[in-house]
Amino acid sequence: MSSKSLDFLTEALKRLPGVGPKSAQRMAFHLLQHDREGAAMLSRALYQAVDQVHHCAQCNTFTEAEVCDLCQDEARDRSLLCVVETPADQVMIEQTLTYKGLYFVLMGRLSPLDGIGPKDLHLDKLVGRSTDGEVREVVLATNFTNEGEATAHYISEMLKARGLAVSRLARGVPVGGELEYVDAGTIARAMLDRRSA
Amino acid sequence: MSSKSLDFLTEALKRLPGVGPKSAQRMAFHLLQHDREGAAMLSRALYQAVDQVHHCAQCNTFTEAEVCDLCQDEARDRSLLCVVETPADQVMIEQTLTYKGLYFVLMGRLSPLDGIGPKDLHLDKLVGRSTDGEVREVVLATNFTNEGEATAHYISEMLKARGLAVSRLARGVPVGGELEYVDAGTIARAMLDRRSA
Repeated sequence: MSSKSLDFLTEALKRLPGVGPKSAQRMAFHLLQHDREGAAMLSRALYQAVDQVHHCAQCNTFTEAEVCDLCQDEARDRSLLCVVETPADQVMIEQTLTYKGLYFVLMGRLSPLDGIGPKDLHLDKLVGRSTDGEVREVVLATNFTNEGEATAHYISEMLKARGLAVSRLARGVPVGGELEYVDAGTIARAMLDRRSA
Repeated sequence: MSSKSLDFLTEALKRLPGVGPKSAQRMAFHLLQHDREGAAMLSRALYQAVDQVHHCAQCNTFTEAEVCDLCQDEARDRSLLCVVETPADQVMIEQTLTYKGLYFVLMGRLSPLDGIGPKDLHLDKLVGRSTDGEVREVVLATNFTNEGEATAHYISEMLKARGLAVSRLARGVPVGGELEYVDAGTIARAMLDRRSA
């Protein structure tokens, strides 16, 4: 390539998750040829986000303020604390409109193989939040992957030892699911956790 | 979302080709949580590229200089001019190491439905380049799509009317191709264009 700026841009775009050399080149050409305004906007947005976004002092999610809007919202039920892995998971739960409590965002999951232990997830901060006297139930909403389950188990043991009520999102057949096409593990769990109809 | 900077970043990332709302959110969270250095680097790279990259006065490709390195390279054969749609195509041809002439980059293809006509492809500039007295053969290397073929045909007629030799990349069975799995149109073309062995 005969342009250093273009090489630099392609390299930088490869830092985005899921973007390889071909996509990065395509993105760079697209921005320069068809959307220079978008490129300038993205440049500003990145700069601003890096400069201003940090973690909420209470729930650990991304925010520009000291404490995020949701944590400051007086209408939320302060006796409920929902533990999620990422802000994206938090967004999904908010979209269900079924939860009115507060959150704690781990920003990850326990993963010994990747060197991610309890300290990296700020579990000490979670214990502090959970034992503030207001929280009465902690809802574990980590993913239902092996790592998410292990994380939920670890946190559950830790908080139950401190006398807190701990619950976990229900496992079972998804809404709209046909038994024929649902995996056996899920059906087994749904059978064990069956409820009176 | 409780952060305006984060919303702005997600919006801006959606301007990238092939990036929808979910990917944009994932990219934004990834950068802020795991690669703030990469985000800052990408911000600088975008700013720099928008600021400094423009089109080569001779071949129309992206460059920071008035005329790109390739056009200035004395070792290239100035009697050959290869017409490609994009800088990415130019990169691919350079990688083959089979071509030692110069290029003209259209930065697009004729596409009446999208409102892209001869003027948008700077075809007047191409005519100027081709009739400079040095160029003796123009190699058309636009894509073998309908639009690319139409573009090649249009340019071919235009340049042949001015007495120039015009050639087109060979069509045929790809290297490593098995006839059973090659489409009939390609085999038909390979049969018509067969060469003495």
